[in-house]
Amino acid sequence: MTKSVIKTVEWSDEGVVLVDQTKLPTEEVYVTCGTYEEVAVAIKDMIVRGAPAIGVTAAMGIALGVRDAKASTLSELRQMFGMICRTMGETRPTAVNLFWAIRRMQRKFEELSNMPLAVIKAEMVFEAKRIHLEDIAANQAMGRNGAVLMPSEGGVLTHCNAGALATAGYGTALGVIRAAVESGKNIRVFADETRPFLQGARLTAWELMKDGIDTTVISDNMAGAMMAQGKIQAVVVGADRIAANGDVANKIGTYTVAVLAKEHGIPFYVAAPWSTIDLDTPDGSKIPIEQRNGREVTHIAGKQMTPDNVRIENPAFDVTPSKYVTAIITERGVAKAPYDESLRKLAETETVSA
Amino acid sequence: MTKSVIKTVEWSDEGVVLVDQTKLPTEEVYVTCGTYEEVAVAIKDMIVRGAPAIGVTAAMGIALGVRDAKASTLSELRQMFGMICRTMGETRPTAVNLFWAIRRMQRKFEELSNMPLAVIKAEMVFEAKRIHLEDIAANQAMGRNGAVLMPSEGGVLTHCNAGALATAGYGTALGVIRAAVESGKNIRVFADETRPFLQGARLTAWELMKDGIDTTVISDNMAGAMMAQGKIQAVVVGADRIAANGDVANKIGTYTVAVLAKEHGIPFYVAAPWSTIDLDTPDGSKIPIEQRNGREVTHIAGKQMTPDNVRIENPAFDVTPSKYVTAIITERGVAKAPYDESLRKLAETETVSA
Repeated sequence: MTKSVIKTVEWSDEGVVLVDQTKLPTEEVYVTCGTYEEVAVAIKDMIVRGAPAIGVTAAMGIALGVRDAKASTLSELRQMFGMICRTMGETRPTAVNLFWAIRRMQRKFEELSNMPLAVIKAEMVFEAKRIHLEDIAANQAMGRNGAVLMPSEGGVLTHCNAGALATAGYGTALGVIRAAVESGKNIRVFADETRPFLQGARLTAWELMKDGIDTTVISDNMAGAMMAQGKIQAVVVGADRIAANGDVANKIGTYTVAVLAKEHGIPFYVAAPWSTIDLDTPDGSKIPIEQRNGREVTHIAGKQMTPDNVRIENPAFDVTPSKYVTAIITERGVAKAPYDESLRKLAETETVSA
Repeated sequence: MTKSVIKTVEWSDEGVVLVDQTKLPTEEVYVTCGTYEEVAVAIKDMIVRGAPAIGVTAAMGIALGVRDAKASTLSELRQMFGMICRTMGETRPTAVNLFWAIRRMQRKFEELSNMPLAVIKAEMVFEAKRIHLEDIAANQAMGRNGAVLMPSEGGVLTHCNAGALATAGYGTALGVIRAAVESGKNIRVFADETRPFLQGARLTAWELMKDGIDTTVISDNMAGAMMAQGKIQAVVVGADRIAANGDVANKIGTYTVAVLAKEHGIPFYVAAPWSTIDLDTPDGSKIPIEQRNGREVTHIAGKQMTPDNVRIENPAFDVTPSKYVTAIITERGVAKAPYDESLRKLAETETVSA
């Protein structure tokens, strides 16, 4: 198995470099966002997507904005920093990793506030790079924690893309799959294509094929039939936000998969870094769900697929109540029901390093 | 409400006229199949689709082939007729209406076998036209039988297209919805877009918009979220084949919707003409499921959406076990569980005419 090097988001002196995920898999194009505003637009337009990747990208965008801020006093820099953080916070509402990354950069900024401006700027860049490295390490730890839960042989269904492309590298759900394959398990991945944005067809399939992992793309509506045919032994997905009670907001369609898994007695796992867990949100009903432009549903590859003026729903996420979740796999360990207890307990744990 | 006139399949002296369903909704183009071979290709390529429409089209294709057969003796005509029926029977395997229509044309041919060739030819054309008219009448009766089951107010989810475009006119599932709306019920339709062929986005939305019925298109994977939000009060779908025990083969994704409906306590109705019910097939496991070309999944509007060489599954249908089916609505009446009994009872009933 050739290990792929997928550069989802990278820091460079010229700016934040992103692989343009709207162009994959047919074109592998990298864009450099030279300003924090460009980074914000890239997040909003889903050039980069996936909750952990959004967090890392936002941190780098903030670092970029701070580094290039034309400020001559701390007070000026602080004002600009506030504006940068607000811009970043208005890109997408559901993934809590975005707000986690902003808060972390804010804390770091405050820690540095008696330093010279040049030091603050350099340290903010270091902090963003640290978040990037920590995310990869978290995914690898998640992979180790989750690999044992995967079947030693069989089909694993995943929805959307919770892979290297959704993170700084390795992936959450796909990290678990990668670790299981690396440990010798014989896994065949079924990737829901994941309408409307087709992250499964375009991104999950692309990165798993790069790693030589057996991958089958299906339309979202085939998941039930595949389960009924006995082709699926486990489901593993990522998350955009996990509430204190274990309710999981993730890509639209995740809830449908969870219901199907329950009906077929198939375990349903969620893999997410600790930064996705939002203990301040008591349950899923309090998670803001982004509604995206209906055009994502009506047009595919530029072609209109629906009659003019038809109504469209396009929620980008749905909420899977925790009763459907077999376990939540984090870098700190694996949580099971009752989640309010198990997540609180993990909150007190230190991350176990590799 | 303006009543639409949708000409799914029509007989003309020049051949069988079909609205090209691969081009809707952005182009309303009619094609005339001048030979029975062209009719067979149109069925195979899904220029026309939907189990009842396939049956009607096949009957007309057979009539066309017989009418234009260069035969000077009954034995020659019979030989050609056999070939025509075989060609038609090899187009698509799942919809039993196709085989029902072929058998009916075969019976008519045998009845006519002591008639002059010119009479046989004319009578075969009449028979095809009769099947066309009967299908519309069956849909209207189904509509009357099913309208009472629809909520007086609320959302009704449908999958694929079981409308005028799937039949000779009016529709099965959409016929039930039309009849409910005509009877004054305040129904908002949610149309699953229905990947990979997008019959819901393209066809269901198009014909319901023509009739001024409130329609919202969703991606297939949004159905669970819509149900969880309380937006769906009933599901009604068509069928390609219903086994003696009430198991329903229908467009891929139907089973997923049925599982979701059960989980949310939402009634799940199947509307189909009697010609869809196949008492010779004991249960769903015996229904042949067509596997279509993976390109329908990998390419949309000509654009490649998946990496090269990825595996694809593309079953055109799935089987919903009868335990998920609240009722089967036919022109002969409404069947409920236990279906082996209720369907057998309906089999002995005469169709009630309008």
